[in-house]
Amino acid sequence: MSIHPTQTQIQLARQGDITPAMKAVSEQEDLSVETICQHVAAGQTVIPANHHHTNLRPIGIGAALRTKINANIGNSALSSNAECELSKLHTAISYGADTVMDLSTGADIADIRRAIISASTVPIGTVPIYEAVSRVEQPEDITPELLLDVVEDHARQGVDYITVHVGVLKEHVARASQRLLGIVSRGGAITARWMKVHNKQNLLYTNFDALLDICRTHDVTLSLGDGLRPGCLADASDDAQFAELETLGELVRRSREAGVQAMVEGPGHIPLDQIEMNMRREAEVCDGAPFYILGPVVTDCAPGYDHITSAIGAAVGAMHGAAMLCYVTPKEHLGLPNARDVRDGVIAYKIAAHAADIGRHRPGARQRDDDISRARAAFDWEEQFRLALDPEKARELREEALHERRLEQEDSAEEANRYCTMCGPKFCSMRVSQQAIGTDEGE
Amino acid sequence: MSIHPTQTQIQLARQGDITPAMKAVSEQEDLSVETICQHVAAGQTVIPANHHHTNLRPIGIGAALRTKINANIGNSALSSNAECELSKLHTAISYGADTVMDLSTGADIADIRRAIISASTVPIGTVPIYEAVSRVEQPEDITPELLLDVVEDHARQGVDYITVHVGVLKEHVARASQRLLGIVSRGGAITARWMKVHNKQNLLYTNFDALLDICRTHDVTLSLGDGLRPGCLADASDDAQFAELETLGELVRRSREAGVQAMVEGPGHIPLDQIEMNMRREAEVCDGAPFYILGPVVTDCAPGYDHITSAIGAAVGAMHGAAMLCYVTPKEHLGLPNARDVRDGVIAYKIAAHAADIGRHRPGARQRDDDISRARAAFDWEEQFRLALDPEKARELREEALHERRLEQEDSAEEANRYCTMCGPKFCSMRVSQQAIGTDEGE
Repeated sequence: MSIHPTQTQIQLARQGDITPAMKAVSEQEDLSVETICQHVAAGQTVIPANHHHTNLRPIGIGAALRTKINANIGNSALSSNAECELSKLHTAISYGADTVMDLSTGADIADIRRAIISASTVPIGTVPIYEAVSRVEQPEDITPELLLDVVEDHARQGVDYITVHVGVLKEHVARASQRLLGIVSRGGAITARWMKVHNKQNLLYTNFDALLDICRTHDVTLSLGDGLRPGCLADASDDAQFAELETLGELVRRSREAGVQAMVEGPGHIPLDQIEMNMRREAEVCDGAPFYILGPVVTDCAPGYDHITSAIGAAVGAMHGAAMLCYVTPKEHLGLPNARDVRDGVIAYKIAAHAADIGRHRPGARQRDDDISRARAAFDWEEQFRLALDPEKARELREEALHERRLEQEDSAEEANRYCTMCGPKFCSMRVSQQAIGTDEGE
Repeated sequence: MSIHPTQTQIQLARQGDITPAMKAVSEQEDLSVETICQHVAAGQTVIPANHHHTNLRPIGIGAALRTKINANIGNSALSSNAECELSKLHTAISYGADTVMDLSTGADIADIRRAIISASTVPIGTVPIYEAVSRVEQPEDITPELLLDVVEDHARQGVDYITVHVGVLKEHVARASQRLLGIVSRGGAITARWMKVHNKQNLLYTNFDALLDICRTHDVTLSLGDGLRPGCLADASDDAQFAELETLGELVRRSREAGVQAMVEGPGHIPLDQIEMNMRREAEVCDGAPFYILGPVVTDCAPGYDHITSAIGAAVGAMHGAAMLCYVTPKEHLGLPNARDVRDGVIAYKIAAHAADIGRHRPGARQRDDDISRARAAFDWEEQFRLALDPEKARELREEALHERRLEQEDSAEEANRYCTMCGPKFCSMRVSQQAIGTDEGE
């Protein structure tokens, strides 16, 4: 993809070199390429685009751009295979995921990843420590060399960004001991266990320069994971979370100095009134590094509906500056998502991201809404379906309603097109209103 | 129910008379009965409790109380019957609706309503103009006498609150003519048409005193409908909407002076960044009258998922002072909800209301969240299901995940209880974390 295969986007941006990736982002976002270049140079926008991911269509992630959404896929030790994961990849991309993370922890990790990368036009992220753990008996058997080897494998395969839990320091973990739910991040928990068993500092923190070297060589963007993110409302915004955030801020600066792009991952489970504060704090502590948040879930007690609990938090987070939203599916806290859950999660997050883009007055964000509203006024059902975030679902529910109605009475198809099935002709507000305020030619 | 069948809650509260209804509300809300009485006297809390609704368990609606949710049911001219509506009523109540509105516009309106009231322990609301329209050929054939007769019928049957579109004045309607979607409220559109055909002022506005007399006699709470609510983002917060709001403020004051409880209905479709402003404006213009909002939907382009688009808006609205949230179901804009849609809508709104209650630090609001989080830490699945807003759904999704896993490999049921199906034992963050930070006895 890149015409400068030896340098990263941030290095090139600092030299004022406009890359094809920056041009592509500029066109997508309706912002000048100079602006994109400046944001990338400042580290406030990242363009995850590994030199080896040849079929990638690059996108930018930053608070000044359209809000992006990520869909997690991947097998566990317990289920799924390559075919199944590729099907989830296609579902995620077709419903509008901007990036996809392969979180596989089970069999054939490397092969599944290779298949996903070569099938994906969107940036692919991974969590290398999962594969490192899969190669040893116990999490504590990981060595720095092994972990960096895995990172290098991912980088050479074309992974565009990697989550690394470098901010989980020994001194921060103690602060999590009073928590109701402890450490809920898998990478965070593994790292904490490693540090405890060896009584040593975080192995990636002490080897951060070597990690940066690999990332710079292939232009892998760092996604600085929040291993101490709160796993329930009771643990939100606590000392452990914010101590780690300070370290992430330090790591953002070190990454930028090394010519490596970096974004920061965020919570998790946060009460509605603390979301804005969390967004501001990250922007301040991490000097505007793109904030990539998981939800946040705004209530713990709705398992089965966490795509909704978290879409609420995600929309509010994006309103206040989050750059990318990691989806949560209805299966969260219960099991691994299947293809239906992936679809439900992606659509809920398209809604959250789009609502925030409108709320932030991003240029053109409301166009689709105005177009579908015009189609509503015109009773143009096909156009409404075409403009819907999920045309299939909209059509299916309308057909269900029409069917339930037909069980009751007969009417002509033509007539049915002049009102929706909610009210019937006499009570159709749109029809009555068009007559009442004179926008209907029929009057 | 009431021991003072001749006076309304607000009249009694002003005299300092504590009613059984106020006591019940005080117990539910963990607030002193004196506080409840003061709020009712000030009109900032309403207790919709018609003297004739004998099996009612009264609740309070006000910004100082737990956020309430309403579920709309009711047939249209096109579908459903009494049995079907009673089944929706039970679904709505069992999943936690605090009030239910019967919006029937079809056959057997009076009989369906009678059945609903006598089966309902929660307050029932109606929109009398629908029945008035059903009794005539054309909406413009309604007379003030007919409409007041219908209101009186509802009041005598035991309806606890009624939506009346008294604020849709002739002079406001012209302001809606430039809108993309005109008037989307059925009651608003009917009223606008009536005024246009007769070239007269709103028939309920000119007969408001007679309306107040009926409401005072039976203690029917007025829900002052927003007939000019925006039906799409492009029409939000416009002159028509806010001109009507000023009139609603005037009507709130007239209702209170007449000893009638009143709340105010709100939009509709509002971009995320305008919700807080809308909540503040209503509180100011309507002197703290409980704000009963419909969603709001925060993007127009997700038909099939409007329970989600609107739960986002509803949560933010409740955070900023809305007292009751009228649910929106996945069928919105497509057809009438069936029982499955009612369930989806109610749960989405329980989530929104609960998230806002936590965000507003209502006493005890987070208890259920902390309890379910403790059950998560203990891998106590039965307790998690018990505490879930929808236990059935949580259990169903976990079983689905377990089933998909079993297709892959065998493991013991006992082992499966020690981790969730997301990660498997080696990657279970909770298990690893409990060992790492020493809260697990196993280590």
